Amino acid sequence: MIDKQKPLPIAQLDAGDNVIDFGIGQPGLSLLPLELLRQAAADRLQQPERAILQYGAEAGDGYFRLALAEFLSDGYGRPVPPQHLFVTNGVSQALDLICTLFTRPGDVIFVEEPTYFLALHLFSDHGLQVVGLPTDEQGLVTDVLAEKLKYQRPVLLYTIPTFQNPAGWTLPESRRRQLVSLSQEYDFTIVADEVYHLLNYTAAPPPPLAHYGGQSVISLGSFSKILAPGLRLGWIEAAPALLAQLANAGLLQSGGGLNPFTSAIVRTMLEQGWQQQHLEQLKETYRERATALAAALRHHLATATFADPEGGFFIWLTLPEAIDAGDLLPLAQAHKVGFRPGAQFSSRGEARNSLRLCFAFYDTPTLEAGAARLAAVLAAG
Amino acid sequence: MIDKQKPLPIAQLDAGDNVIDFGIGQPGLSLLPLELLRQAAADRLQQPERAILQYGAEAGDGYFRLALAEFLSDGYGRPVPPQHLFVTNGVSQALDLICTLFTRPGDVIFVEEPTYFLALHLFSDHGLQVVGLPTDEQGLVTDVLAEKLKYQRPVLLYTIPTFQNPAGWTLPESRRRQLVSLSQEYDFTIVADEVYHLLNYTAAPPPPLAHYGGQSVISLGSFSKILAPGLRLGWIEAAPALLAQLANAGLLQSGGGLNPFTSAIVRTMLEQGWQQQHLEQLKETYRERATALAAALRHHLATATFADPEGGFFIWLTLPEAIDAGDLLPLAQAHKVGFRPGAQFSSRGEARNSLRLCFAFYDTPTLEAGAARLAAVLAAG
Repeated sequence: MIDKQKPLPIAQLDAGDNVIDFGIGQPGLSLLPLELLRQAAADRLQQPERAILQYGAEAGDGYFRLALAEFLSDGYGRPVPPQHLFVTNGVSQALDLICTLFTRPGDVIFVEEPTYFLALHLFSDHGLQVVGLPTDEQGLVTDVLAEKLKYQRPVLLYTIPTFQNPAGWTLPESRRRQLVSLSQEYDFTIVADEVYHLLNYTAAPPPPLAHYGGQSVISLGSFSKILAPGLRLGWIEAAPALLAQLANAGLLQSGGGLNPFTSAIVRTMLEQGWQQQHLEQLKETYRERATALAAALRHHLATATFADPEGGFFIWLTLPEAIDAGDLLPLAQAHKVGFRPGAQFSSRGEARNSLRLCFAFYDTPTLEAGAARLAAVLAAG
Repeated sequence: MIDKQKPLPIAQLDAGDNVIDFGIGQPGLSLLPLELLRQAAADRLQQPERAILQYGAEAGDGYFRLALAEFLSDGYGRPVPPQHLFVTNGVSQALDLICTLFTRPGDVIFVEEPTYFLALHLFSDHGLQVVGLPTDEQGLVTDVLAEKLKYQRPVLLYTIPTFQNPAGWTLPESRRRQLVSLSQEYDFTIVADEVYHLLNYTAAPPPPLAHYGGQSVISLGSFSKILAPGLRLGWIEAAPALLAQLANAGLLQSGGGLNPFTSAIVRTMLEQGWQQQHLEQLKETYRERATALAAALRHHLATATFADPEGGFFIWLTLPEAIDAGDLLPLAQAHKVGFRPGAQFSSRGEARNSLRLCFAFYDTPTLEAGAARLAAVLAAG
């Protein structure tokens, strides 16, 4: 009764043969450390600890949180107490849980313009009213936010403060302080998506937003960009009182911790130092890819502007005002190249002359070939 | 900076030394097959398939769904097409996703009286208005439901049709047909929590509700009761059009499939037949435990009534009308025994003279000792 000749779809995204799709915002397959995870699983599962198979503590396994706290303390260069950590299935699941517990349909959520397009989809599932905030080359313009708050209050503010998706910028220290101070003054919660924080290719960024204090900030981290998306493992860093609210959700009370088995395996990765070694290799690879793509774009695309990436996965390309990047997609398809048009990242269809390119998925020669194809598209468009 | 002397909590539940807590509704630790999962992980992770570490297909990995479809087809004795399966993080997460996508605060959800207490917590997080429906020794009284639907319509109806938690009963064939027919007539969706379906200790139960046809039924299954809760792995069986709605959620579009890594390991358990062997052993063990606890209760507790368990995890004990099981808890604590009072399972504080006992967590001698302690509590109460 089961047709084995036609397996169901496996990969979330498949660009098709010979297409170089800069729209794929994932780590390259060859960068996923299968051998390290095989070793970590072998090490963990040969230990007689059946508790990793049982319902787990709501906030996540205590030993895992200790190991994660040490890893993050090293990575941030400042202490992260394990009591401030809560284990998740990744940022998407964390956002979903936060929306369920802290919002009701019709509530206002402030987001950056542009922002991560699939977060907008998630907020829409929760019936939230999304309001876009202006940004510049340093991210959210907090002075404008301060003005806006005088006549409109959000329940949540969603920000990607470091190596932003899609625009690449990093919010400076002073704006971080002002943002957190505004959240306290106007009583809203900041949800900071900081999945690219540990992937810096030049100077270290300012600390994650949760380090600016208070009960009003939730920082979201993930192993998806630094280890493997398929693990569905991430964390929340926030004040213990906030984490207690999450742990008291029906989802957690019923199902227990969100990822006991996988977090036990990744605990070995952390304790053995393998995660740290892998992260250093990734940063080297991504730094090289970012530099190569930036150089190729400068060489091939005279009319486009962009900032050199200092971390993360993306270059945000801005074309002359008159060009709508979305209109170029059919032409790009003909040239076997892909990208994500800027308007997808806007809550109100703006950024039409921008587009997002990911440099994490392909190797350097492929990125360079892709830049040449992109130039051909622009020349023909 | 991290105090290693004080590890954070690990297990979701800990009854304390020497307490026999019939309230713990989990598989016993010794029944969690660590060695099988070690072998499955070793087998899977030595194969050069990095795709299991990447973002996965929204509905779950295609090969895993094929293997799961074969396992369920064998278990149900009727075909389960893989296109009708969707991989989840377990029933709690599936319920949460269904509430997010299909309900809005204030919507009415019908539940059984009594029902799974933590599902009530989850529905409350989503702001749903819970309405309890009468049941008898065969479960939901569908004739009463038919009358009720004439003046009140729910968006969802949550049922545990087989070896119910907490009451143990199984909805017979004729009521299943009537229930599904009513959902079609009055346009509501049935959410059937069927985690105990494969754990039958006498005759096989009628098929899962999804097998009664149509677009109005979502059946929820899980590996938590038949393999290991810590995996956070389960499935939804429903018509493809319903699954497409789930796959289109922001959570899935953003994070990809809910459990690519763990499902790849469990795929080996399924393909090698280890899951089936383990399930057969579990059924033998649980059958023995259920029989022993029932015998010990009959021996020690003359005033209590209950039905012999035919599957699942629980015995639902009914005390004389005048007794409030909740009032007995302090006394039970003094006698180092625990249970869940019936009122916890009611949306309106009913079933006060009932209590739920789980026979899955402890071995037979401990269950028998617990029954004796319970008798002492009742004698003193």
